[in-house]
Amino acid sequence: MFSLTVCDHIMIAHSFRGAEFGPAQRLHGATYAVEATFSAVALDPLNLLIDIGLAKQELRRLLDTVDYDNLDTLPALAGQNTTTEYMAFHIHTLLAEACRAGTLGPHAQKLAGLKVLLRESPLAWAAYEGPV
Amino acid sequence: MFSLTVCDHIMIAHSFRGAEFGPAQRLHGATYAVEATFSAVALDPLNLLIDIGLAKQELRRLLDTVDYDNLDTLPALAGQNTTTEYMAFHIHTLLAEACRAGTLGPHAQKLAGLKVLLRESPLAWAAYEGPV
Amino acid sequence: MFSLTVCDHIMIAHSFRGAEFGPAQRLHGATYAVEATFSAVALDPLNLLIDIGLAKQELRRLLDTVDYDNLDTLPALAGQNTTTEYMAFHIHTLLAEACRAGTLGPHAQKLAGLKVLLRESPLAWAAYEGPV
Amino acid sequence: MFSLTVCDHIMIAHSFRGAEFGPAQRLHGATYAVEATFSAVALDPLNLLIDIGLAKQELRRLLDTVDYDNLDTLPALAGQNTTTEYMAFHIHTLLAEACRAGTLGPHAQKLAGLKVLLRESPLAWAAYEGPV
Amino acid sequence: MFSLTVCDHIMIAHSFRGAEFGPAQRLHGATYAVEATFSAVALDPLNLLIDIGLAKQELRRLLDTVDYDNLDTLPALAGQNTTTEYMAFHIHTLLAEACRAGTLGPHAQKLAGLKVLLRESPLAWAAYEGPV
Amino acid sequence: MFSLTVCDHIMIAHSFRGAEFGPAQRLHGATYAVEATFSAVALDPLNLLIDIGLAKQELRRLLDTVDYDNLDTLPALAGQNTTTEYMAFHIHTLLAEACRAGTLGPHAQKLAGLKVLLRESPLAWAAYEGPV
Repeated sequence: MFSLTVCDHIMIAHSFRGAEFGPAQRLHGATYAVEATFSAVALDPLNLLIDIGLAKQELRRLLDTVDYDNLDTLPALAGQNTTTEYMAFHIHTLLAEACRAGTLGPHAQKLAGLKVLLRESPLAWAAYEGPV
Repeated sequence: MFSLTVCDHIMIAHSFRGAEFGPAQRLHGATYAVEATFSAVALDPLNLLIDIGLAKQELRRLLDTVDYDNLDTLPALAGQNTTTEYMAFHIHTLLAEACRAGTLGPHAQKLAGLKVLLRESPLAWAAYEGPV
Repeated sequence: MFSLTVCDHIMIAHSFRGAEFGPAQRLHGATYAVEATFSAVALDPLNLLIDIGLAKQELRRLLDTVDYDNLDTLPALAGQNTTTEYMAFHIHTLLAEACRAGTLGPHAQKLAGLKVLLRESPLAWAAYEGPV
Repeated sequence: MFSLTVCDHIMIAHSFRGAEFGPAQRLHGATYAVEATFSAVALDPLNLLIDIGLAKQELRRLLDTVDYDNLDTLPALAGQNTTTEYMAFHIHTLLAEACRAGTLGPHAQKLAGLKVLLRESPLAWAAYEGPV
Repeated sequence: MFSLTVCDHIMIAHSFRGAEFGPAQRLHGATYAVEATFSAVALDPLNLLIDIGLAKQELRRLLDTVDYDNLDTLPALAGQNTTTEYMAFHIHTLLAEACRAGTLGPHAQKLAGLKVLLRESPLAWAAYEGPV
Repeated sequence: MFSLTVCDHIMIAHSFRGAEFGPAQRLHGATYAVEATFSAVALDPLNLLIDIGLAKQELRRLLDTVDYDNLDTLPALAGQNTTTEYMAFHIHTLLAEACRAGTLGPHAQKLAGLKVLLRESPLAWAAYEGPV
């Protein structure tokens, strides 16, 4: 199995509902370093898993829908606690849709899997992995 | 599949039995940067995989049983070569037991898996991954 | 010259005033990985530059005054654009005061210098360095 | 499942064929930080997954066949676009052969899997994972 | 003293003249992770050391003059061994000129210093630091 | 000012004398990731600050005098608390002597400075910087 990972990052504000969150119930924020890992069983004739330029560009376009913003106010995230694990899932959903729609090129439509990992601090991160 | 990782570290002394180990047969030591990755198929209603505060606290409590110590003298490790791969397994065993016992909260009892990775230097690390 | 560095991190929300900031004028956030570097021309008789336990504890206590919060609402930061470079200066001010006050032990009162560096993303960071 | 990872790096020149590559069609180069991860279901009686000294030495010997060189001129890579994903596969092939041949010791002949990951920049990497 | 660092990277081919270089006399290559650190004694009224957007954009524009290329063939580097330390100096020269010319905004014309650091591998890097 | 950094690591056991050290009074250990930074005002005619091959080799030879050992038992460190800051100084002393003796080549005899930094964990490090 082959895999290819591209990275970017976002800087967001949010707050959490639930006593479990302690001080994180207050409005605070995070830099999420984002790693998107695309998997495939084979490379194309040019020995590419996916067009890395398109992948970076599309990841950036999707991250722009949440970057430099307060997640508490975004309709796409209404009613959700935007935990790191949930945001990994949210970005996975957007990126998988883009892959299926062909925005990342034809090879991205036959991927074996996609993993989105978000590092919230040097000491904690979360990920969601699933089919495209 | 969702995953959540929390990190900590320990600083231990030990020595190895076996000519294969060369100079590492002498008493020496290591900083192990510890990464514990919890996996689950779904999040709870608060969008949490696990209570990250409890996870960090329990990992710290378990690491304290070996931290700042000479592993050669600990009854729990008697007769074992405390290689990085073995210590990953040892900490996995302790943390999986804690998950089953409910110490990390009810969600930790239905985890899909647990991986413990120990970085011994910038150029080498080992891990053990298994069910909870 | 000797130096000793301890690390921690904070997760904050804020917004910026000024067209130069573009989308960062919106309420957003950041994880700041904080590195505090203490410098001294000599070590104490125990070969310590500073009590590292006290240093970590005091850094944590000072970071708690801004952690998990919206910097736009904190009186101590009123009227300031809380850029990464300014926040490095702000934390430097707090930590230098604590050093002078003796909270980090007697050795921290004769430090040659203090540098506070804040990493806002994998690709950008800022620092303030000055006397204690 | 146990795993053990050793790291090294190579510095190579190459160029790509195909308009998709844009400016990377010109002769350029890369530092590849190489991570080789060996997996096994059990440790040996010394609690070793594999002889880490032999693993580092053999990885180094294999990397020397491409290190400090122009990949466009190497017979072993003739006709291939030496993308990061392809080079991960190429090094995996060499290292898996060495494992089967016994060069990394008897334990390396019963590995559950081998993953070779190449970091081409702080923001992109690729890997190939397969049986030994 | 304040400082602000922005990062980028380039991927280049080159070779070295001189027996001291051993195998690096062959055409090979490198990824250089580039860190540009701007220093100033004070911030502007917006609490900015420099316009970080302009800094990233101008660094990118200057790096494009050597990125994805064979340094052995570039007129600007003719007759030079393009060691990591020399390339740090070369990029420092270009970036300092841009600062003086006002391309990074008015604040960049009164910087206290500029450091350019190039990481060539996980285990080696070089830098040049000097006035603007 | 130019600088060049090479890295290596050691894995040692030791214990500390003094109640300030708490649990670190017990025999424990550390991986020290070692960064040696050589500074010079000019490069040689080959655009080298120092022969990096010699620098790595000599650093390795000096680290071997303490690597894979219990620092409490080494005559060269008798009576010393081998704190991270002290070990940075100790390695600096050895490496500066080697530079003056010509072991790192003629250029290493006219260095402007030498800094030795030891990372003891992901969250703490210490350094000693001084003339050669």
